[in-house]
Amino acid sequence: MSSVTDAPNTTASLSEITHEEIFAGHLGGKLSVELSAPLDSQRDLSIAYTPGVAQVSRAIAADAALAKRYTWTDRLVAVVSDGTAVLGLGDIGPRASLPVMEGKAALFKKFAGLNSIPIVLDTKDVDEIVETLIRLRPSFGAVNLEDISAPRCFEIEKRVIEALDCPVMHDDQHGTAIVVLAALNGAATVQGRDIKDLKVVVSGAGAAGVACTNIMLAAGVTDVVVLDSKGIVGTDRTDLNAVKAELASRSNPRKLSGGAADALAGADVFMGLSAGTIAEELIASMAPEAIVFAMSNPDPEIHPEVAQKYAAIVATGRSDFPNQINNVLAFPGVFKGALDAGARRITEGMKVAAANAIFGVVREELAVDKIIPSPLDPRVAPAVAEAVAAAARAEGVA
Amino acid sequence: MSSVTDAPNTTASLSEITHEEIFAGHLGGKLSVELSAPLDSQRDLSIAYTPGVAQVSRAIAADAALAKRYTWTDRLVAVVSDGTAVLGLGDIGPRASLPVMEGKAALFKKFAGLNSIPIVLDTKDVDEIVETLIRLRPSFGAVNLEDISAPRCFEIEKRVIEALDCPVMHDDQHGTAIVVLAALNGAATVQGRDIKDLKVVVSGAGAAGVACTNIMLAAGVTDVVVLDSKGIVGTDRTDLNAVKAELASRSNPRKLSGGAADALAGADVFMGLSAGTIAEELIASMAPEAIVFAMSNPDPEIHPEVAQKYAAIVATGRSDFPNQINNVLAFPGVFKGALDAGARRITEGMKVAAANAIFGVVREELAVDKIIPSPLDPRVAPAVAEAVAAAARAEGVA
Repeated sequence: MSSVTDAPNTTASLSEITHEEIFAGHLGGKLSVELSAPLDSQRDLSIAYTPGVAQVSRAIAADAALAKRYTWTDRLVAVVSDGTAVLGLGDIGPRASLPVMEGKAALFKKFAGLNSIPIVLDTKDVDEIVETLIRLRPSFGAVNLEDISAPRCFEIEKRVIEALDCPVMHDDQHGTAIVVLAALNGAATVQGRDIKDLKVVVSGAGAAGVACTNIMLAAGVTDVVVLDSKGIVGTDRTDLNAVKAELASRSNPRKLSGGAADALAGADVFMGLSAGTIAEELIASMAPEAIVFAMSNPDPEIHPEVAQKYAAIVATGRSDFPNQINNVLAFPGVFKGALDAGARRITEGMKVAAANAIFGVVREELAVDKIIPSPLDPRVAPAVAEAVAAAARAEGVA
Repeated sequence: MSSVTDAPNTTASLSEITHEEIFAGHLGGKLSVELSAPLDSQRDLSIAYTPGVAQVSRAIAADAALAKRYTWTDRLVAVVSDGTAVLGLGDIGPRASLPVMEGKAALFKKFAGLNSIPIVLDTKDVDEIVETLIRLRPSFGAVNLEDISAPRCFEIEKRVIEALDCPVMHDDQHGTAIVVLAALNGAATVQGRDIKDLKVVVSGAGAAGVACTNIMLAAGVTDVVVLDSKGIVGTDRTDLNAVKAELASRSNPRKLSGGAADALAGADVFMGLSAGTIAEELIASMAPEAIVFAMSNPDPEIHPEVAQKYAAIVATGRSDFPNQINNVLAFPGVFKGALDAGARRITEGMKVAAANAIFGVVREELAVDKIIPSPLDPRVAPAVAEAVAAAARAEGVA
């Protein structure tokens, strides 16, 4: 834990928050279901429940599309996890993942006004997870997949998207990627550089590493080198799973091989998206004006004050340092925009639009310690939602 | 629809409520998910979400029982349906059943302060429904099965109870049975009679008919005759499914055979629990001081004003007549009591305790037009919850 107490951009570092305070904040859970209309009189009962409700049910039975209008599902995001890759804690199971899913649901309401319920599944089987969501389909309007381990997460997301006619997004992949792209745009703009010219090293080939690489390539970055626990992910490797092998074919254009030292020498950007650490001397070996995103939580790959000795711009996942890369900048607005537009899916174009919208909010305020908006900035979610909805309409998925 | 506007015990008959008013009351659904703690500052975020939440998740990973304390699931009832037997509408499917499930969830909050979410399933397969709820188990604290067709509902409930270590109840069966038993106690007490001496005819051998018969037999009623669409359910019948055959062996002690006329001649109580009608002359053939519960909704088996010509006490399922038999008198308190006590299941004793508690609320106020409390009586749910929790502890399931 950090002992920094006067860090900018924050009102409290975690070191000031006691264990007791955290547990008290979770007592009884963090969500409640409330009535959106009164139920105080016999008349209210007759409208909301029997016999009045029968008219509404009959109408939906005759025209299923009316369920969007007369039930809460049209604005309801299911936050779905199997608890296999929770925060930095790994496979702690569905029950232990629940406080995270409740937190996520609370953020959906707080930042986007969406209703959201945690659905945690007592199975790790890919077929069973997909099948369960198909059976649950009439119960919600969108699916935020969360904290599902790689490489299973890639197949699960792909199959759920194919099976369901509604917005589906694995936030650990795409929420992170959207915010990283926004932050990279912010950092490059501060420095007067073009992201297309940056040599980027991504440490971690899990959910976030793969998605960040993909969105950067889609945004025009040409030189991305990915590291996994064994070293540079390249076409010379024979130990890669299918996802990494495919990634190797689209990244590492200079055909580097070896480890982190080989990748980082002369690189412009380091993106830490694993639970590991990176040695100080490797950061020192980067090109001048280096950009370091040390996003591992709660312990960044390198302490930001150490990284600052060599890098021009440093970002982390933490609230007690400047430039916090936090998914909450993306997912509430992305789902709100998708649901506002009635989108059947979330496309790559909608994700890039979200990143541009986040960047747009701070474009006129950019600084080395403000490459991205604060997670609490109320301008972000509406801007993201509007951009995502417009992109959905432009791409014809709405 | 009735045109009675000055009926007692009500503030509005449905005939006064317009189609537009009903649909307006369902726009956007009837539920919302809200935050139970603030998320206004960086400090709030650090407690409710990362990094603070990791401490709570880690604690639950080490001791799964802590999920009851630090998540919302301990007070969360899943209202689960496949949409196969919705109100009087039949198999209208999961989407069309949603307004009913949302109404039910709203009633759980209103009357028992419990959180509740509708889960509607796009499958009618018994195995798949049971399997899905097993996979979802970590997501909730109790299951209210709702509007599932008979005889599938019996097997589904039995298997879900066996599979899950939490309170499970099919409300169409047991919620109805509890309220019917309470009302029968009320009616008999008004008349100075003992329910054990009453000759009861139950019209309908579906979910409610079977459960009402069972709870009456458990409460000491000895003479119950059940009617299905083919006539009296007796051991002489060769066309009965397994559930009805078993019921035949425990009911109809006078070995009656034939139809409704044979069953009702000289009977003390008629309980309508089907969507059918009953002819006026059959009600006329009942014993003096007859009790008629015509509970089909929205159209009672016989209009209460017609039944009143022959019967001493008449009850219906409708809010615009006295003596409304409404499940809302039972299910909120039953689940609250079970969850308060930490019960692993809902026993027959807990159901009988619930019926006695409902009866107890109006014991001192009983009249021919008040054999049961109003569905809006705020004394009922707390009394039921207390009685159910006490019964759970007494029976050793808590």
